[in-house]
Amino acid sequence: MSYEILSKIHSPADVKALPDDQIPALCEEIREKLIDVVSVNGGHLSSNLGVVELTVLLHRVFDCPEDSIVFDVGHQCYTHKMLTGRYDRIDTIRREGGLSGFPKRKESPCDAFNAGHASTSISAAFGICKAKELSGDNSYTIAVIGDGSLTGGLAYEGLNNAGRYNKNFIVILNDNKMSISKNVGAMARYLSSARMQPWYLRLKSRTERVLSKIPLLGKPIGNTIKRSKSRFKHILYRHTIFDKLGLSYYGPVDGHNIEELTNALNTVKRSKDPALLHVVTTKGKGYKFAEKDAASFHGIGSFNVDTGEPISSKQNFSGVFGEELCRLAKADKRVCAITAAMRTGTGLVDFSKTYKDRFFDVGIAEEHAITFASGMAVGGMLPVFAVYSSFLQRGYDQIIHDAAMQWAHIVIGVDRAGIVGEDGETHQGVFDVAMLNAIPGVSILSPCYYDGLKASLSTALYDIEGVVAVRYPRGSEGYRPDAYTEESVNYDIVGDRSAAILLVTYGRLFSEAAKAAEKLKKDGVNVCILKLCRVKPLDPEAIDFALDFQKICFFEEGMRSGSISETMRRMLSERGYTGSYKSRAVCDKYIHHASISATLSHLGLDADGMCAMVREELS
Amino acid sequence: MSYEILSKIHSPADVKALPDDQIPALCEEIREKLIDVVSVNGGHLSSNLGVVELTVLLHRVFDCPEDSIVFDVGHQCYTHKMLTGRYDRIDTIRREGGLSGFPKRKESPCDAFNAGHASTSISAAFGICKAKELSGDNSYTIAVIGDGSLTGGLAYEGLNNAGRYNKNFIVILNDNKMSISKNVGAMARYLSSARMQPWYLRLKSRTERVLSKIPLLGKPIGNTIKRSKSRFKHILYRHTIFDKLGLSYYGPVDGHNIEELTNALNTVKRSKDPALLHVVTTKGKGYKFAEKDAASFHGIGSFNVDTGEPISSKQNFSGVFGEELCRLAKADKRVCAITAAMRTGTGLVDFSKTYKDRFFDVGIAEEHAITFASGMAVGGMLPVFAVYSSFLQRGYDQIIHDAAMQWAHIVIGVDRAGIVGEDGETHQGVFDVAMLNAIPGVSILSPCYYDGLKASLSTALYDIEGVVAVRYPRGSEGYRPDAYTEESVNYDIVGDRSAAILLVTYGRLFSEAAKAAEKLKKDGVNVCILKLCRVKPLDPEAIDFALDFQKICFFEEGMRSGSISETMRRMLSERGYTGSYKSRAVCDKYIHHASISATLSHLGLDADGMCAMVREELS
Repeated sequence: MSYEILSKIHSPADVKALPDDQIPALCEEIREKLIDVVSVNGGHLSSNLGVVELTVLLHRVFDCPEDSIVFDVGHQCYTHKMLTGRYDRIDTIRREGGLSGFPKRKESPCDAFNAGHASTSISAAFGICKAKELSGDNSYTIAVIGDGSLTGGLAYEGLNNAGRYNKNFIVILNDNKMSISKNVGAMARYLSSARMQPWYLRLKSRTERVLSKIPLLGKPIGNTIKRSKSRFKHILYRHTIFDKLGLSYYGPVDGHNIEELTNALNTVKRSKDPALLHVVTTKGKGYKFAEKDAASFHGIGSFNVDTGEPISSKQNFSGVFGEELCRLAKADKRVCAITAAMRTGTGLVDFSKTYKDRFFDVGIAEEHAITFASGMAVGGMLPVFAVYSSFLQRGYDQIIHDAAMQWAHIVIGVDRAGIVGEDGETHQGVFDVAMLNAIPGVSILSPCYYDGLKASLSTALYDIEGVVAVRYPRGSEGYRPDAYTEESVNYDIVGDRSAAILLVTYGRLFSEAAKAAEKLKKDGVNVCILKLCRVKPLDPEAIDFALDFQKICFFEEGMRSGSISETMRRMLSERGYTGSYKSRAVCDKYIHHASISATLSHLGLDADGMCAMVREELS
Repeated sequence: MSYEILSKIHSPADVKALPDDQIPALCEEIREKLIDVVSVNGGHLSSNLGVVELTVLLHRVFDCPEDSIVFDVGHQCYTHKMLTGRYDRIDTIRREGGLSGFPKRKESPCDAFNAGHASTSISAAFGICKAKELSGDNSYTIAVIGDGSLTGGLAYEGLNNAGRYNKNFIVILNDNKMSISKNVGAMARYLSSARMQPWYLRLKSRTERVLSKIPLLGKPIGNTIKRSKSRFKHILYRHTIFDKLGLSYYGPVDGHNIEELTNALNTVKRSKDPALLHVVTTKGKGYKFAEKDAASFHGIGSFNVDTGEPISSKQNFSGVFGEELCRLAKADKRVCAITAAMRTGTGLVDFSKTYKDRFFDVGIAEEHAITFASGMAVGGMLPVFAVYSSFLQRGYDQIIHDAAMQWAHIVIGVDRAGIVGEDGETHQGVFDVAMLNAIPGVSILSPCYYDGLKASLSTALYDIEGVVAVRYPRGSEGYRPDAYTEESVNYDIVGDRSAAILLVTYGRLFSEAAKAAEKLKKDGVNVCILKLCRVKPLDPEAIDFALDFQKICFFEEGMRSGSISETMRRMLSERGYTGSYKSRAVCDKYIHHASISATLSHLGLDADGMCAMVREELS
């Protein structure tokens, strides 16, 4: 495709200048480009295909960057990026050095607020709006939020505060009936009922007519209705949850009907109150495979455009986790699985079908997931909450307050722990260890291989009390030395016990350490590896073992402050260790998008980086 | 008062066995006892006075502990404790070794779930309810939640999940029109409108009558209404937010009218759907000073029963913070203040009156507070969010994702940082440093005195970028050496620079270290103190200074993992420090209720504990 219209758009002004009749063609070009780019680079496809018309029309009706558009989560911003001067770089999206897959204020003044996690847009947009008001700026602030994000409590906190106040504040509810998987919960059912009620609008006008004729009725009935008339109207007109929360509700409108949507956007633009426009869109719109299976095309790797098939589909940790959990659930009826809108991503599709009554998709509600799990544990169940590391951050207080502090036995499957690659800084799983390491009553297991993950899950459920986090990386198993046949849940010692230097690590990085050891051996340098799996609490025996080495190098894929290497440093120091102790972790910075292997290399956490550190230590 | 009825109640069965006509007298005795105990021990008075009848009647209508009552926040559980076998120990409440001021499962099987923070009850109760269902247990699970807690997103996440499912699930909405201060936000306005609508119930029955007569009307109108009839009914009967979220709404009922409330509780008990009962109560009911000023009597120290005056009312850090923020706001129109329902507690009452348009009470919504502040910062304001340390835990992900990662300049006033005393484990401010220390782009200032707090606030607003936390303890300034005249925002060196041992600390503990130094000096032992205020990032100069000492002892009032002492340990190690380095912090445990001074003593963090550690080191 030549992208004749799209390629000439360099700013929102160019979008505005287009004649109406070119808009459908522009949308078609955008969809082609989206499919083209995501099929190569991977990324978020379904959500972007769903908001093509909405994004184009937002830029025709409003004025970016004076008007601020805050995208919730932000994974649906690809069209926005193309229309705001970044079309020529859209092929670089999610690649190292290229555009981010999420809004970034550093990239463009049209990106009003950074995102990556869900449910933040209303609060952020309201803050921007209030700042404008206090500065005498009358421009618009628009939050674009999906129905999935509306299941997060933060969105509700935002609504609870934003209602009533500002006339230049607009919420666009992009209702595609999905979170990432199918949307759940009472709000989803509610929105579904709102979508099903075109009768409601007709009813309104009819009731008007009916009520206007009431004075003709006989006295007893007439008087009653007369007094109730304004109340009837009140209930009929302001009956939505959003109205009750102080936002004027408009809609639902078809998010792919250009005329209808343009009119609706112009209507809310004129609203004197803060307004919410309910836009119904189809996730994956315009690409048949994505329309059919939006969940699989939510966030994906590269795929074949003609068949919809992913380029590679190896077994991965999430899949093994899900399989093992099914096995455990079969044997023990207390085992339950909880996900926060990540049924597919966390490998729980089979579980959800086989053990329907013990499967809970709670929506994008990590806080609730933890507290709910704690309630279940107190009630005698064995709940397992599978969640991406970076999203677990939402449940920090609940882990402390609702789970660990009252010794509720819950298991957290911390998926995507460590570097995640192309999704970039908001999604890196680099905080979970520091976060959990400080919480009394929490244990952390961090296996490197599938067998270790399986063993860790059983141990977590049956051999440890309190909160147990089992963390595992994104993707598949890495290199495994032939001699390393069985992964222990506690620790393993691999290599030359009499070596001068000890490498310590855990999780996926053991693969890199093992590779490093082999490379070094070829150069005549022998090393020993202390491979941890249970990193909290650390086994004093493992520390004692380390004491005998003159030099220790610790490698980990997470923030340094609060890390396991810092704990080990203290424990060694308390035991009078006087040798050299070096640690390499993520040091007080955020990690931009790039492939996992490139990122590990940049951080000095791949085999080459480890070799270099060892050589430096020994020189 | 002799507490004739109350003193004979040893279990919920005794409450049930009372004749109806003794209930008012029982409630009166309970109120007397509450005022009596809290006036001596301090604690939560207003909220407890408000739920006396509700608690008594819950125990008459339901069967504890088979039926589970989950109190939200839990500060309103004093009556519950008295009625469930703990009357004889109620005088010990909040005292070391005595009853906790919050529900604790360890104390009684009638305490179904621990609490302390807000908005958890619906999620926890739903978890318990689901566990019962899966185990074939038909008993009831009841969440008792205030309208204030309903402003927290977690409560909404709970509602979103709990709606529709379980028939033995009941939410009691204890609506006292307050959070801790006056309740805010759209939900509060909504509840207020619900309270104002007794006409609604009357309207319902009238409408029934009207609609039943419709067939008599002329054709055109008749048909329209006929078709609409069921829809009218639908809107009228299921018009509340809660109905829309899947819970059958009952109420509002007067929470102090025994007959009305008993009937209502029996009605929801019979409900086939999950039910929400809206109970309207008066916070502080029965004690005139508390009814008049419920906020001041929310959580208080000991007070004079006859006058309502607190026994002591010294200047404190919260007050100084509020005053200084007013001064800064006067000079700079960008300065805004945000609180999460803690206007009084965080010292912002004057600010809220003087700078009304720049003051934001967002409800019990710490997540929103951070994201909203970040939005304001992006919009050019200088937002300052004042929050208790333990409640800041709720905003962990938002600090990372919405503030620090995009370099939004927000200031967080971390009140009640460190040990808080009688409120106990849920309220200890011992996680904030470990939590913030791991987040890139966050600075932490921790002054010891009022002048340091003032200087830190200015520095935070104008001299540092990104997220800046200024943390200060509960209560008043401690001991200050005469020679220590001006507190630096970076670090100070106090005492004998040529001493063999260096004490390092920050925040309130400097007072203890200074006392320790004087005690030791009397025994002929000279020490030097490195007093930090800016603890993140640590000044390399301060570390270099420490390198010269053979022995270093670091003291801090927070979790050890991720602490500043661990960071300093690493920095010293990297600089080749070979001396002795000991740190004393909170080691992987929760800290029960006791006075602040007793707790510091138990932890070895008071002057005596420091002296003992120094002597041990030097021996």
